Amino acid sequence: MSGLTHIAKNGEAHMVDVGDKAETVRIATAEGHVKMAAATLDLIREGNAKKGDVIGTARLAGIMAAKRTADLIPLCHPLMLSKVMVEITDDPTLPGLKVQATVKLTGKTGVEMEALTAVSVACLTIYDMAKAADKLMEIGGIRVIEKTGGKSGPFHHPEAL
Amino acid sequence: MSGLTHIAKNGEAHMVDVGDKAETVRIATAEGHVKMAAATLDLIREGNAKKGDVIGTARLAGIMAAKRTADLIPLCHPLMLSKVMVEITDDPTLPGLKVQATVKLTGKTGVEMEALTAVSVACLTIYDMAKAADKLMEIGGIRVIEKTGGKSGPFHHPEAL
Amino acid sequence: MSGLTHIAKNGEAHMVDVGDKAETVRIATAEGHVKMAAATLDLIREGNAKKGDVIGTARLAGIMAAKRTADLIPLCHPLMLSKVMVEITDDPTLPGLKVQATVKLTGKTGVEMEALTAVSVACLTIYDMAKAADKLMEIGGIRVIEKTGGKSGPFHHPEAL
Amino acid sequence: MSGLTHIAKNGEAHMVDVGDKAETVRIATAEGHVKMAAATLDLIREGNAKKGDVIGTARLAGIMAAKRTADLIPLCHPLMLSKVMVEITDDPTLPGLKVQATVKLTGKTGVEMEALTAVSVACLTIYDMAKAADKLMEIGGIRVIEKTGGKSGPFHHPEAL
Amino acid sequence: MSGLTHIAKNGEAHMVDVGDKAETVRIATAEGHVKMAAATLDLIREGNAKKGDVIGTARLAGIMAAKRTADLIPLCHPLMLSKVMVEITDDPTLPGLKVQATVKLTGKTGVEMEALTAVSVACLTIYDMAKAADKLMEIGGIRVIEKTGGKSGPFHHPEAL
Amino acid sequence: MSGLTHIAKNGEAHMVDVGDKAETVRIATAEGHVKMAAATLDLIREGNAKKGDVIGTARLAGIMAAKRTADLIPLCHPLMLSKVMVEITDDPTLPGLKVQATVKLTGKTGVEMEALTAVSVACLTIYDMAKAADKLMEIGGIRVIEKTGGKSGPFHHPEAL
Repeated sequence: MSGLTHIAKNGEAHMVDVGDKAETVRIATAEGHVKMAAATLDLIREGNAKKGDVIGTARLAGIMAAKRTADLIPLCHPLMLSKVMVEITDDPTLPGLKVQATVKLTGKTGVEMEALTAVSVACLTIYDMAKAADKLMEIGGIRVIEKTGGKSGPFHHPEAL
Repeated sequence: MSGLTHIAKNGEAHMVDVGDKAETVRIATAEGHVKMAAATLDLIREGNAKKGDVIGTARLAGIMAAKRTADLIPLCHPLMLSKVMVEITDDPTLPGLKVQATVKLTGKTGVEMEALTAVSVACLTIYDMAKAADKLMEIGGIRVIEKTGGKSGPFHHPEAL
Repeated sequence: MSGLTHIAKNGEAHMVDVGDKAETVRIATAEGHVKMAAATLDLIREGNAKKGDVIGTARLAGIMAAKRTADLIPLCHPLMLSKVMVEITDDPTLPGLKVQATVKLTGKTGVEMEALTAVSVACLTIYDMAKAADKLMEIGGIRVIEKTGGKSGPFHHPEAL
Repeated sequence: MSGLTHIAKNGEAHMVDVGDKAETVRIATAEGHVKMAAATLDLIREGNAKKGDVIGTARLAGIMAAKRTADLIPLCHPLMLSKVMVEITDDPTLPGLKVQATVKLTGKTGVEMEALTAVSVACLTIYDMAKAADKLMEIGGIRVIEKTGGKSGPFHHPEAL
Repeated sequence: MSGLTHIAKNGEAHMVDVGDKAETVRIATAEGHVKMAAATLDLIREGNAKKGDVIGTARLAGIMAAKRTADLIPLCHPLMLSKVMVEITDDPTLPGLKVQATVKLTGKTGVEMEALTAVSVACLTIYDMAKAADKLMEIGGIRVIEKTGGKSGPFHHPEAL
Repeated sequence: MSGLTHIAKNGEAHMVDVGDKAETVRIATAEGHVKMAAATLDLIREGNAKKGDVIGTARLAGIMAAKRTADLIPLCHPLMLSKVMVEITDDPTLPGLKVQATVKLTGKTGVEMEALTAVSVACLTIYDMAKAADKLMEIGGIRVIEKTGGKSGPFHHPEAL
């Protein structure tokens, strides 16, 4: 459990066999953020006041990306996600936007990669829509903060709220 | 140039018209990292000593993701990239792995989103392959460090080397 | 059940949680048509007499599209369809072609979107292959005509045969 | 020009050779609608009042689908669209929502299939998000209303405004 | 069982209904090879000595392709593969590289197409990476050598080792 | 020109820079076959007599796959193919079906991988549709037989007709 599961004994990458793992309800929550100039955050907030488009677009991009995780990450299993939720809030202390994604599945393997992919692509979408105004934005803090289901038991990131 | 280009006057998100922009050689370089426990970095290094699989797999995942940027980021244009390069080096000061991607195009719009997407997916792949050994990894520092071509002129991130 | 299920209380779009729904056999049938000039329909019929290509191509495009529904419709769940069938018949009263698709699944959520997507893409493919001959074609009448399985019970469109 | 261009002399479907066509600016506009109960339209309008999600989600789904046209329609050429715009307005006379998409390209072949695909997938997304409230919705009126560029000259649908 | 299962009585291609088939563990192994000049094989071996890239890249491409089988083969069902393994060995008697893929699923239909697709795309990737050095390479010997699970019982190719 | 172009000096796989190559008309033709029992070929021929579905389906699958080459082969460039043609003929001497694909592009890099991918996926589709009748089929003889355009000059496989 503490080695690199995707590396076979001969050193070759492979897709781990999950056929014998139990079908349980598995939930994972990941977070991340886009740090930007305060003026950029204001621009997004003003757009948001009108139609919410940067945030709405990024949220949808994150949800759709979660469904394509196995297409992007070479050794991820295709999964039939039963729920994907992405929330984006502004955080003046960054300043910037915080992204949080929760993914749920009844299945044989965890969904933290799906949650992390949703967060990453939502952050990339925010970056894309604001990049004409701010070339110094930075995406960071992408990590799993909560995970339940599966053999290894519940996990809560010690530094997460 | 300093507003949110993807937001029309009525507040709706749209795909910016690049039809009248000039075809120039455009190059963008982005970077990012995965921070992990020193012991996790050692595990990857040892695997690398054998067959290089975590790093080789992440590099390929990044290259392939660059080609799918327009599929993932809702308002990105489909582009015919002429080159994608992803480099991954270990950095004991993090400790962790640094990822750098360079994308090149002769075309009408910049390729920083393609470089950022390559970096993000390479980082996610590293995370996936090492997550059984380390639940506290964090992806961060994803930003554009260099950009040439296009109307706005060359850009070099002031904090980048 | 009678509200917009994909809109959370705060107004944000999300992917509905189907994790607790029962696994039942679910079948949905949708229909639609492409209206065209009688002469265009004749051209297709003549091609059909030779190798059946417009109709055969559209049928396959519909089947393949059903499998990609979750990739296209942002809040659809990925599903493991157990059957997809697309039938195309000519209807001189339109004049044009009628498309009907039936999709089957043993799973936790209905498949009407998969049937509607199959019909839509089959219609678009017919349009594509005949558009050089007829610029005034129109796609319409796309609706669900039959649905079984799931909590809401069987549905039969009152105007369908 | 007036036959079925995708059918070869032996009756087999093929991808038309556009290699020798001129690179010109090509623009196509398509429209369509989702007819629904007046009460369903009200529900969407109220959601819209809050965060605009049904309409915003459908607009993005349409834009993203335009980029995937060649993946869905078997004989369409892959194209580097320079602009995609989708507009959705409510129409109490249907009652329902009208969808209009405009696609632009500097290239060798027309973009009406991209505009029609954007309209179709936007309509399917509206259907998906409102289907729990209304099982009798119908998608229709999908047609090209305007086209410029290319050898066949400008086209304006005689019945379009 | 001995006819063409994807052809309906009226001669039309369709996706076979697997809804009533039993969920069993299904495993399929396929093989294939790329024949090349001995000097080309040497070039790949030398590259391999450094970082294993041709073989590592082809192995990953095969694994990722297995997950996309239903996207490529029109009448294949989408499946949630629980394991994909691709092995590539050099064979001086060809001379060339041999590819073998094993796919596993707990599900209602066999996975030989997934194994064959993994082998085919791994071979294409080898070809791509070596084609500048050798224009006369040939891909062949692609067949199923072992299959277990499902109604038809275990299968072992009589000519396979 | 005679080494492995996708391997950088440090041994890492990368996407070759084609930005400085000339835009020329490039055409590639590839071939391959599916060998099967004579009785299986008869079954397909009879189906063909009715609606041509095995061959028609495989031809379309090949055309669509050519457009997805850059998605499947990690280091292939995305290309805007201007023509794809797939022909399938029966060959009683195999016995089996022969597949030939021709791909055309005005661009900066060759299209032999696109032609080979079209042939491979057409062969896989034939296999899929006939596998219930014949478990011993074999796909082989996949090679480039003709190539024009590009710096290396025209190529004709010495053993091809």
